[in-house]
Amino acid sequence: MRLTVFAEGGEARLGILKDGRLHDGGYFPRTSEEFGSLAEKVAAGAIEVSDRVVGTPAPALPVVPGARVICIGLNYAEHAREGGSEPPDYPALFYRVDTSLAPNRARVPVPEVSDKLDFEAELLVVIGRGGRSISESNALDHVFGYGVFNDISLRDYQRKGGQWTPGKNFDGTGIVGDEIVTPDEVPAGASGLRVRSILNGRTMQDANTDNLIFPVARSIALISEFMTLRPGDLIAMGTPSGVGYARTPPVWMKPGDEIVVEIDRIGRNSATIG
Amino acid sequence: MRLTVFAEGGEARLGILKDGRLHDGGYFPRTSEEFGSLAEKVAAGAIEVSDRVVGTPAPALPVVPGARVICIGLNYAEHAREGGSEPPDYPALFYRVDTSLAPNRARVPVPEVSDKLDFEAELLVVIGRGGRSISESNALDHVFGYGVFNDISLRDYQRKGGQWTPGKNFDGTGIVGDEIVTPDEVPAGASGLRVRSILNGRTMQDANTDNLIFPVARSIALISEFMTLRPGDLIAMGTPSGVGYARTPPVWMKPGDEIVVEIDRIGRNSATIG
Repeated sequence: MRLTVFAEGGEARLGILKDGRLHDGGYFPRTSEEFGSLAEKVAAGAIEVSDRVVGTPAPALPVVPGARVICIGLNYAEHAREGGSEPPDYPALFYRVDTSLAPNRARVPVPEVSDKLDFEAELLVVIGRGGRSISESNALDHVFGYGVFNDISLRDYQRKGGQWTPGKNFDGTGIVGDEIVTPDEVPAGASGLRVRSILNGRTMQDANTDNLIFPVARSIALISEFMTLRPGDLIAMGTPSGVGYARTPPVWMKPGDEIVVEIDRIGRNSATIG
Repeated sequence: MRLTVFAEGGEARLGILKDGRLHDGGYFPRTSEEFGSLAEKVAAGAIEVSDRVVGTPAPALPVVPGARVICIGLNYAEHAREGGSEPPDYPALFYRVDTSLAPNRARVPVPEVSDKLDFEAELLVVIGRGGRSISESNALDHVFGYGVFNDISLRDYQRKGGQWTPGKNFDGTGIVGDEIVTPDEVPAGASGLRVRSILNGRTMQDANTDNLIFPVARSIALISEFMTLRPGDLIAMGTPSGVGYARTPPVWMKPGDEIVVEIDRIGRNSATIG
């Protein structure tokens, strides 16, 4: 099943693709509990799809209030090496807060205090069933679906204090795609999918989720070792090599640039800088 | 004004200390907007205090749903040095998520995967008025009040992946005191206050907020450079030297231990391990 989250009448609604057209699926969940119920219905094939066909709506954030966004750094060996690190044996994990997120087709402001704006194409995992100490062998049962994320980073602020939080949390820099596909649409764990970022039409990153150091099931197991996951939580799976800062000379995104992230069989998102 | 947040009938309520007794001040804000209104009322001296006196209620979390908890690492020079770091010129910043928090008098579980449980006495800042790019000279106008925090950390998980997030986000490890004092109760920026942690009656950390590398106003200015703050957001100001891991031999908290954090003129919180 392919879902879209769109804005209408000041609220986020769920669109469901059926017979090539987007049908209204009711309002997007407003709590983690509601998201859990939605996930159960979707898994049981019991979701209600109205006859109302939605045209080409404005994208909205597929983010439940109170959802946590857990991000993995250095999850592709070549990306770790382009930044001077060895591939890690435990993921670099950080959070993004809600103010740092923006929907598909957002305009991303260049902050007054930094112009070191860099792109990061990432697979996004949407949790459907929560839990703590989830085993790797059961972890994929907790996945609601997959999406596309652009973890746009301010590289100088990412490094200033050792912890990456500031560089990863400038207002409106994390682009969450509006398209979510359920696990039946892709290989197990969303493996074997091509991930790309394209800046002004030029491919900058081009990798495959087969190369994740910590694949989806392992990441869910590792994260749930320390925190109880809830329905609607998001996990950003880290970015492959080819980012702007590691190029010679470095490539920083400038006002007017268009950055697109695409993942085969899942979808795409885009953002305009400035 | 001295406020307390307590649990009654399944909800968090506000207690207001008046004439030596705790009066019911209505339910604790449920949204950032409500918290902003409360902050305005408190600043204007227009808060309504009912005649109902509350006895010795159970502490609740003074945390609005959706509040962000921004934590500063290495904010005391001696603590930086005891961990082998030089005092930084930009703070190490990380977030805690809601599942990592627990109220005063909580029982903190020792996780199955780690026994490297360490205490961190910290001043807590509660934001009353939000904003972005707040100047240092105006920053204290954005403070609702001050509280007491224990940033209990799993030291091995803090270091595993370079980013501190896992070690700082085990379920129920961040003890948020239920007492909040408004700025008129303390010196400007809560400076000059003694901060202590006491493990089983023995003082482990004993420092003064005058020694903060990034004092409250400067921290608010630095954080609001990248993110829009909202009413109800919390800033944990970092811990002084004397933590368990830096001792010889290291001191880890064990089941049955009682850990207390006290800040003069603000209050205290406690937790029991195991």
